[in-house]
Amino acid sequence: MSGRAAIIGGGVIGGGWAARFLLMGWDVALYDPSPDALARVDRVLDQARYALPMLYDTALPAEGTLSRAASVDEAVAGADYIQESVPERLELKRDVYRAIETANEIAPIGSSTSGFRPSELREGLGTGNRLLVAHPFNPVYLLPLVEIVGGGDAASRVSETLSEVGMFPLIVKKEIDAHIADRLLEAVWREALWLVNDGVATTGDIDEAIRMGFGLRWAQMGLFETYRIAGGDGGMGQFLSQFGPALKWPWTKLMDVPDLTPELIQTIAAQSDAQSGGTPMPELEARRDANLVAILRALKARGDAAGQEIARHEVTIAQPDPDALISVRRTVPVDWTDYNAHMNEGRYGQVFSDAADAVMAAFGADSDYVASGHSYFTVSTDVRYLNEALAGERFYVRSRIRLGEGRKLKLWHEMRRESDDTLFATCDQFLLHVDLTTRKSCPPSPAIEARLATLMDLHAAQGD
Amino acid sequence: MSGRAAIIGGGVIGGGWAARFLLMGWDVALYDPSPDALARVDRVLDQARYALPMLYDTALPAEGTLSRAASVDEAVAGADYIQESVPERLELKRDVYRAIETANEIAPIGSSTSGFRPSELREGLGTGNRLLVAHPFNPVYLLPLVEIVGGGDAASRVSETLSEVGMFPLIVKKEIDAHIADRLLEAVWREALWLVNDGVATTGDIDEAIRMGFGLRWAQMGLFETYRIAGGDGGMGQFLSQFGPALKWPWTKLMDVPDLTPELIQTIAAQSDAQSGGTPMPELEARRDANLVAILRALKARGDAAGQEIARHEVTIAQPDPDALISVRRTVPVDWTDYNAHMNEGRYGQVFSDAADAVMAAFGADSDYVASGHSYFTVSTDVRYLNEALAGERFYVRSRIRLGEGRKLKLWHEMRRESDDTLFATCDQFLLHVDLTTRKSCPPSPAIEARLATLMDLHAAQGD
Repeated sequence: MSGRAAIIGGGVIGGGWAARFLLMGWDVALYDPSPDALARVDRVLDQARYALPMLYDTALPAEGTLSRAASVDEAVAGADYIQESVPERLELKRDVYRAIETANEIAPIGSSTSGFRPSELREGLGTGNRLLVAHPFNPVYLLPLVEIVGGGDAASRVSETLSEVGMFPLIVKKEIDAHIADRLLEAVWREALWLVNDGVATTGDIDEAIRMGFGLRWAQMGLFETYRIAGGDGGMGQFLSQFGPALKWPWTKLMDVPDLTPELIQTIAAQSDAQSGGTPMPELEARRDANLVAILRALKARGDAAGQEIARHEVTIAQPDPDALISVRRTVPVDWTDYNAHMNEGRYGQVFSDAADAVMAAFGADSDYVASGHSYFTVSTDVRYLNEALAGERFYVRSRIRLGEGRKLKLWHEMRRESDDTLFATCDQFLLHVDLTTRKSCPPSPAIEARLATLMDLHAAQGD
Repeated sequence: MSGRAAIIGGGVIGGGWAARFLLMGWDVALYDPSPDALARVDRVLDQARYALPMLYDTALPAEGTLSRAASVDEAVAGADYIQESVPERLELKRDVYRAIETANEIAPIGSSTSGFRPSELREGLGTGNRLLVAHPFNPVYLLPLVEIVGGGDAASRVSETLSEVGMFPLIVKKEIDAHIADRLLEAVWREALWLVNDGVATTGDIDEAIRMGFGLRWAQMGLFETYRIAGGDGGMGQFLSQFGPALKWPWTKLMDVPDLTPELIQTIAAQSDAQSGGTPMPELEARRDANLVAILRALKARGDAAGQEIARHEVTIAQPDPDALISVRRTVPVDWTDYNAHMNEGRYGQVFSDAADAVMAAFGADSDYVASGHSYFTVSTDVRYLNEALAGERFYVRSRIRLGEGRKLKLWHEMRRESDDTLFATCDQFLLHVDLTTRKSCPPSPAIEARLATLMDLHAAQGD
């Protein structure tokens, strides 16, 4: 599933692309003429190394290798996928494509352009449809959306590749300046500039108006599905008849665009400075990423929206070593730590609950089995907390079946740091097999009992 | 802190207002001429009863009383606060205000209007500044934002009241059609209508473009703070110089507005039907609420954005009975349950961790103490899971200090259902006092040790 990606342009966006591919096990060749490009990419990569693994309740593949190429030709030679993220100047972009044309005649070429149409990008080139728009959103290593514009076979190939590295490809049906998301953003941006220009609101007011209100709705349902609900039982038809007339009212100034005069630029920059309270950029970025991780994980637990996309991707990630004793392998996500700056004791319970799920699945008591009306409920746990685990640390759990007889199941778990096998915690766990209809204990099926016995023997043979 | 609110208009918005006041302990008198208004409000109230308490890691006050008034006069008589949420017709609204003018000459009157300016609302009336815009966002019982337009003393009084019921009042500096948030929404809405009208995207495509991408950014930082980061170390000035030119490009169609022809209405309604997959409205609302709870709780755990606002409000909620043995009182939030549809074992650990925090605070080892460099770390827990706890259930924890000597602290917790005292779980918890610099155990200060001994004696005297 992994391969070799060429990243042309090493800014924040190019760096984000490099990080996503590398962390999903791809090798990456980067080309950027600027001497400090690699340092910029390294900074993005460090942020991604911390945040991206936290989205998953499983381990990511071993990181790929990042190499710096001396030219576009060198970067793209042998690449399975090429992503261009150079500045938004058409001639500059076309120069890059011309170099690619001869150096790699097969790989799809995605452009990160925010505004240009694929037909504009392709003008005068022989790339044909393999050159298309693959427009991502910052931070590229966390946000799933990528807009794919410029159809044909290449669009489905590119979608498949980007889906493999955990993105959500949205196929845009017709090419149009700025695609879909940036048109919506541009509309809001222009209206927001008016509000600041006219002294109605500061940049801080506008941000609060968004994040305390509709931003929370949009993170999970977007615009139309939210309005469908606002329409009540009458749905979208009802909503349109109720709010349609507002289209005729002076509710936006978007018939016009404010001039970005030096004064307006100064006003906006000063308000933004005040709003961020002098927070240094790395801190602001870390805050954004930690919040995104927390929101995405919340949606993942709900199995909805962008969280559903991460769950979809998670099950496709091949696990490094199939070992009957390893039940959990992952990092400590940022939402698991407490005011002592270490993993809260509650989350150990969750780790050992996940470990029990993995052991259960290994002897056939998996999600299908639960759906068919049976499960195991935990009756008691005895947890020893031996060392502190911090956000971002990789760990694994070794689990052993100590007893599996009739309705009784006793498991022993050891949670250890990946890098040096430090023992974080142990758990003695007692579970009972239950009927999910009566919610009472009952014996498992003979088939499950037999597989349980086999796994217990295997654990005994492999165990220390 | 609680009082009596009059709610005029019992639609989705009026119902949301009623729910927020009732669940924060206010009595509510509702007036709506429609015979099915009370049924509508009851439906919203049921949704709020399930979702709103989940935002808080503490118990809400006892619910207030809802009464139905036969007239505007009856509803507002003696009210401390009046909120009007009747349909968006200026004359209808003015009729309501005229009735209020004489029946209640003191209380501030907030209007839920999405578009009208306070000066328009007040025309020909003697209410003066006590009539203002207090524009909330659906669902009113979950989203913190309320825009306050129409300054003066009343604005600060209203802000204080709404802040007390957990809202985030945003004071709008200048009155303007549609205030702030709806101007941004209207801009996006018009652009989105064009995209559908021109066949560039379906309603579903547009929602994915939002919720897989910038919706996640906006839920936590809004527009400008996000762009500040996109500007990199150069901040907002850098961003403006980079993306300012796009203002001159044809990135939106907002110079114009599409006609809502029957064909366009039909297209949008059909796409929206397909997108929601025939999900019944109550289910869609429940999904929205559960997602909002999960996102808001994620932000609360981060102490940021709308989550910070909930944390701010939480500490102002008076707890019902000060009982030295009760350490936790709350509901099971929706993000604590797992595939067995009951509270996951990990969350018991969190409950008992919270219980330990409450006991610690009770003998002086509170957040100031932790900030000063000392804390207690849990060494082991022995949890018995006796009965299932489901999402939305209210419970409490009784805690007892079993041993508090030197660096050692042993606690015993019992978690029970509020309604019938069913025992959900017990926990035997062993903690050690630590120095947060060395991360090693050490004895607490003599002052803490003395208060710990006193509390232990009190527990022994009160305990069964």
